[in-house]
Amino acid sequence: MDGSPTDLGSISAPGRLAGPAEGITPQELALAARNHGLPLEALRYDVTPPGLHYVLVHYDIPATDPDGWRLTVGGRVLRPLALDLDGLRARPAVTRRVTLECAGNGRARLTPRPVSQPWLVEAVGTADWTGVPLAALLAEAGTAEDAAEAVFTGADHGVERGVEQDYRRGLPLSVAADPARDVLVAYAMNGAPLPPQHGSPLRLVVPGWYGMAHVKWLHDITVTATPYTGFQQSVAYRIRGTTDGDEPGEPVTLIAPRALMIPPGFPDFMSRTRVVRPGPVRLAGRAWSGHGPVTRVEVGESSGSSGRSEAFEAGETGETGETGAYGEYGEYGRTGEYGRTGEYGWIGEYGEYGSAVWTDAVVDHDPAHPWAWSSWHATWTATPGPHRLTVRATDAEGHVQPLAAPWNRGGFANNLVQRVDVLCAPDPSVTRSGGG
Amino acid sequence: MDGSPTDLGSISAPGRLAGPAEGITPQELALAARNHGLPLEALRYDVTPPGLHYVLVHYDIPATDPDGWRLTVGGRVLRPLALDLDGLRARPAVTRRVTLECAGNGRARLTPRPVSQPWLVEAVGTADWTGVPLAALLAEAGTAEDAAEAVFTGADHGVERGVEQDYRRGLPLSVAADPARDVLVAYAMNGAPLPPQHGSPLRLVVPGWYGMAHVKWLHDITVTATPYTGFQQSVAYRIRGTTDGDEPGEPVTLIAPRALMIPPGFPDFMSRTRVVRPGPVRLAGRAWSGHGPVTRVEVGESSGSSGRSEAFEAGETGETGETGAYGEYGEYGRTGEYGRTGEYGWIGEYGEYGSAVWTDAVVDHDPAHPWAWSSWHATWTATPGPHRLTVRATDAEGHVQPLAAPWNRGGFANNLVQRVDVLCAPDPSVTRSGGG
Repeated sequence: MDGSPTDLGSISAPGRLAGPAEGITPQELALAARNHGLPLEALRYDVTPPGLHYVLVHYDIPATDPDGWRLTVGGRVLRPLALDLDGLRARPAVTRRVTLECAGNGRARLTPRPVSQPWLVEAVGTADWTGVPLAALLAEAGTAEDAAEAVFTGADHGVERGVEQDYRRGLPLSVAADPARDVLVAYAMNGAPLPPQHGSPLRLVVPGWYGMAHVKWLHDITVTATPYTGFQQSVAYRIRGTTDGDEPGEPVTLIAPRALMIPPGFPDFMSRTRVVRPGPVRLAGRAWSGHGPVTRVEVGESSGSSGRSEAFEAGETGETGETGAYGEYGEYGRTGEYGRTGEYGWIGEYGEYGSAVWTDAVVDHDPAHPWAWSSWHATWTATPGPHRLTVRATDAEGHVQPLAAPWNRGGFANNLVQRVDVLCAPDPSVTRSGGG
Repeated sequence: MDGSPTDLGSISAPGRLAGPAEGITPQELALAARNHGLPLEALRYDVTPPGLHYVLVHYDIPATDPDGWRLTVGGRVLRPLALDLDGLRARPAVTRRVTLECAGNGRARLTPRPVSQPWLVEAVGTADWTGVPLAALLAEAGTAEDAAEAVFTGADHGVERGVEQDYRRGLPLSVAADPARDVLVAYAMNGAPLPPQHGSPLRLVVPGWYGMAHVKWLHDITVTATPYTGFQQSVAYRIRGTTDGDEPGEPVTLIAPRALMIPPGFPDFMSRTRVVRPGPVRLAGRAWSGHGPVTRVEVGESSGSSGRSEAFEAGETGETGETGAYGEYGEYGRTGEYGRTGEYGWIGEYGEYGSAVWTDAVVDHDPAHPWAWSSWHATWTATPGPHRLTVRATDAEGHVQPLAAPWNRGGFANNLVQRVDVLCAPDPSVTRSGGG
């Protein structure tokens, strides 16, 4: 980065944080226009239909040719492999239903906002992935005695913070070669060949891990004796709690628990605020964690006009958290280990609402699909006026979604609870059916 | 809108313009996260693969049931119809390849920016749509002597600027009932049932018209004797040149010409600036117009370091437009009929570059697909340093893409030329392959 007119540094800036009053920038918008999330009403589908699953592509979707594609397996192996798609399809296949979430999900809800792909809460999806277990391929190749990691290279090529690169990530063999972890070299999604944006013709699927591990357009697996330290491992995808970003940070790995609600009723086009009628409203959605099954989902409700609400018809807990005490719930929020917890973020907006009432939802975990999200549902009785609904998940390891945003410099793994603003309107007081 | 706490006006504001220094707002971001454009590298596909075609949903994607679906055709007809999917599939079907573009494409490039779905240039896609010609259905039903319009109602329900509505649009019978216009009631996209976000199980396809006319989740067609005046016809989707928005405006109808380029080389993740190597670079993309075939595509190049460039190897025109004279090219730009032309917009950023050199690209129009985009290609010789590429289309009616943004209050039909910033770097001067 010598400042010459052809230096990549002139077009590829270091990561930065948005200023205090800085809206989403044109560059963030350009990313938001090409990548996309799951429209939240699509949480209704057990398996996300094509085109509704979230997509995050670092560089371009490469122009790949399935017929000429080769997957090479080399490095610290005894018997290097070079496999075409027919060769992979000829091997024993498994299908796994996996919920996949972007590590940057929630980034745009942090203050200060890390300037990158500006996800709110919707960077998630669930698909049935079919392919060859990676453990079987590694066993076939035979790993050397000193083998420690597998390094995966995709065909997408670009520049990031001044570094020209193919997208590349490593995974410890303790994960990559463990049949119980169900890591797949996948060639089908929901029973069809992979779409271009999901890695056609081959991608890695690493159940329970955030999306950055699921290398798309996969063409090489190199087994190494030392941990991979390239850009996407040591520079990106690290949890760093300070704003200067100089610390090495902790690696982003397993998906933190999150619950999302299908927004009830119907929306206003621009504000996305929901409109419901008075009376019982079925609330439903999905919840997941990479640390294990979701064991509890709670729905929170606070009222904009009447203060504390007692609207849940069957609340096992019914505990009330005051605004100032929200920090006590979050695992990260409690300790402040990532810095700035509770200091930034929209949780402060709760002040205009009454304190929340929490009630347990019914959680339906399907043991046939341990890597997929669970369904949950609850019934809420809506009364006229504005309301704010939230939902939070707890997993089998005891991780709980925080009520204050766990800030970090890259904006990773922000599983702050979702907020859904709802207006309960007693009757259609305005013209229906387009006014015509 | 009486200001009571349950009034829809409290959550559903009038349209507004962004302030002079206002970044993209959280509400615009929420729309950008659920709707999505075509990643521009996907212009490489003649037919856009599922999930890459642009999507704009006003309210929620409704939960529809294909098995129980009925399409009713009534109003000023002689023989009302009620058809299920089997009934539609039993009728003679046609397949048409159609390029579909959102009327709001380009909105976020206007200054001041209308606050709504913040498209840049990518709200487009091409699909093969299969269904029953609307003209045949209307002939079967028999329109009354005084019939003037067909009004189409979708199942998506929401609130927009205070008006609760089902999405609904009208179309003059001169379009709807003309077999030559190829309007379809479509039940398949690219040979498969419609995906949820594209209107499952039925949608209207109106070749040549912007997307607002292609009513999704279609369940009723009512023939009327008078023009439809509902929200999506008389309030939204009007071209209004003044900032106060009180005028009735002109209706948005046919797609204005646009050419888009597959960004050459490879991108920087955040800035999306492209990197190419010195030497010949193939430029290619698509161009379309609802007014007729695209007859000319020109590629413009300006250089950031060396001023005027002579880099095109075969330029028929090679005309040079000075920055201050850009207004003379645009049909809208020339007359200023929509107000504020040339006063706002990023075209002013051209000042930092030299003047543009334009050269004709080769256009491949496929007469088998008159409603689909055409391919174009050209060769550009890249020299080290920064460059700015643009492309503009001219259609058979003589409409030319403008070089200054044709501002209007709703941000519709802004077909300002695309800008692609490119850095030509002579060699990989930084670490490749992830630095590892």
